[in-house]
Amino acid sequence: MAQASVPSTPLLKDELDIVIPTIRNLDFLEMWRPFFQPYHLIIVQDGDPTKVIKVPEGFDYELYNRNDINRILGPKASCISFKDSACRCFGYMVSKKKYIYTIDDDCFVAKDPSGKDINALEQHIKNLLSPSTPFFFNTLYDPYRDGADFVRGYPFSLREGVPTAVSHGLWLNIPDYDAPTQLVKPLERNTRFVDAVLTIPKGTLFPMCGMNLGFNRELIGPAMYFGLMGDGQPIGRYDDMWAGWCMKVICDHLGWGVKTGLPYIWHSKASNPFVNLKKEYKGIYWQEELIPFFQSATLPKDCTSVQKCYIELSKQVRAKLGKVDEYFIKLADAMVTWIEAWDELNPPSEASADVTNGPAK
Amino acid sequence: MAQASVPSTPLLKDELDIVIPTIRNLDFLEMWRPFFQPYHLIIVQDGDPTKVIKVPEGFDYELYNRNDINRILGPKASCISFKDSACRCFGYMVSKKKYIYTIDDDCFVAKDPSGKDINALEQHIKNLLSPSTPFFFNTLYDPYRDGADFVRGYPFSLREGVPTAVSHGLWLNIPDYDAPTQLVKPLERNTRFVDAVLTIPKGTLFPMCGMNLGFNRELIGPAMYFGLMGDGQPIGRYDDMWAGWCMKVICDHLGWGVKTGLPYIWHSKASNPFVNLKKEYKGIYWQEELIPFFQSATLPKDCTSVQKCYIELSKQVRAKLGKVDEYFIKLADAMVTWIEAWDELNPPSEASADVTNGPAK
Repeated sequence: MAQASVPSTPLLKDELDIVIPTIRNLDFLEMWRPFFQPYHLIIVQDGDPTKVIKVPEGFDYELYNRNDINRILGPKASCISFKDSACRCFGYMVSKKKYIYTIDDDCFVAKDPSGKDINALEQHIKNLLSPSTPFFFNTLYDPYRDGADFVRGYPFSLREGVPTAVSHGLWLNIPDYDAPTQLVKPLERNTRFVDAVLTIPKGTLFPMCGMNLGFNRELIGPAMYFGLMGDGQPIGRYDDMWAGWCMKVICDHLGWGVKTGLPYIWHSKASNPFVNLKKEYKGIYWQEELIPFFQSATLPKDCTSVQKCYIELSKQVRAKLGKVDEYFIKLADAMVTWIEAWDELNPPSEASADVTNGPAK
Repeated sequence: MAQASVPSTPLLKDELDIVIPTIRNLDFLEMWRPFFQPYHLIIVQDGDPTKVIKVPEGFDYELYNRNDINRILGPKASCISFKDSACRCFGYMVSKKKYIYTIDDDCFVAKDPSGKDINALEQHIKNLLSPSTPFFFNTLYDPYRDGADFVRGYPFSLREGVPTAVSHGLWLNIPDYDAPTQLVKPLERNTRFVDAVLTIPKGTLFPMCGMNLGFNRELIGPAMYFGLMGDGQPIGRYDDMWAGWCMKVICDHLGWGVKTGLPYIWHSKASNPFVNLKKEYKGIYWQEELIPFFQSATLPKDCTSVQKCYIELSKQVRAKLGKVDEYFIKLADAMVTWIEAWDELNPPSEASADVTNGPAK
């Protein structure tokens, strides 16, 4: 009962890449070995490219440092952040798989209330492979889980659900707080295991954290750009938030679902709140304008692919957020560069370029 | 640790009524005695008014049967359903308290995963006394619970929250399924204890169940009309759904919150699925039109009180749902009668008639 459940044939073994941004040796993978070893890893090395990152024996991986990114993308490498975990999105771009799981290197295997190790990746895959229900809230949460269903009063026409684009997992121990909350509550730990997965309703935005995140790259990949953060930029720690807001607007437009809840990972160490405050402070006031912007953003009907949606969104960012700060002009440019680079590395096929041409799933 | 927690001074003792619709002796109250005895009960007796309903010793209660309802409301009694638990809303109308908790007589005290009895009423009160967050989703659920907070990326301007109008609790054991699902899954039991309370986002509808429900009567009472169901009506088992859709549209308009999740009660017995199917079948196809209606319903700015909102909604029901079935013309009339009866029994004071005249909480 208390043993880790490792499926004999790992789910989606050849269809999923694990993307890890890092600046250090990946000893944390030892704990994940039973769950991650069957999968291919894409390691995005941040910071000094001459440093050698050690990866534990037995893992199948490719590693990219800044020199690799510059070589592969040429001038378009400008859209990939440096000295910020936002660089992870380069891994999404070079992957050739249908699904991505991304995790931070300070995240470890958590235990469920029975003491059993949580196979986070397996739960993300379950979330991604079952539909979402963004148009009406089900009070017993994910109706596709064992022992659950749609409750009385749930329209039958909506019970088929829609394809799930993103699975957002949570964190036990150190919660994902901003610097002010870290400073005010230095000792707060998340000990509440909430045994739920739920679809974030259409029209509702949420703070997407990149620490423990799965997504269907084939569906939503081009929208998972983590923005311009870190070195040379006025802001940090908003990379995943930015991706989450853009992605959610596009999923709402294209009719796809975003789930949050299980699985939990064990987040081991709080980052330095003083350093975080410096990275975040512009974001903390900018987000007061960003969120209303994304809440009211609408995409025209002819935006029938993620790329078209994203380019349209970049125009709106330039037009409306450019007034907030010139940084957003630069970011809007980088959004366009990102899509150009994505399409260069992932030439759109006739079938997948336009989601309205075929079944969405 | 495993004992029931009964606060020494029960929360809101003199500000909350417990409303129970029933057709039988209220033996189920024995199990609730530690939690309910300090409160006043309003019992709405359905069916044969000559039957004597026994209430266990020691409870403070008032009881209304059909004769009482007819006597008190006169011709307006037509808006109160007969032979359907929808009659419970009469209890909301005659209460003089700020808060209501309503529960079915086949609901018992559930246990949390540690084996401790759950004080459902106390949790509802906590939900109602803490704010809601309908404008942005917090991934660690209710940020006002102990050990939780707003996560990184949550706008600070929204952290004050808004007043909570409704607390929707859940059910262990027998889930609240419709007749088709009951027939297909007769053995399914809800065993998943999800330790979460969350705000249902603005613009999102949900299936509100009346089995285990708390609300702020002073805020939202006039919207909690459970419609025309049962005897002489073409439909049953949609009373709480109807109230939930109307209430949610009005809460969204007036800027109030609706929470769902904890507390659980133990729902003891599944109702007869064949009987339920007969009651529900019109609802099952009508709801396909009702939900898009409520999803697109908007209220004009001059609807500044719940009563004004509700009368406006009744007009839209008549105009748009009257085409679905003539039943909705009758229901629209009953919605108006309900508000007239409410205002007769609860004469609006200058201060509370218009929510924009004062602080909302």
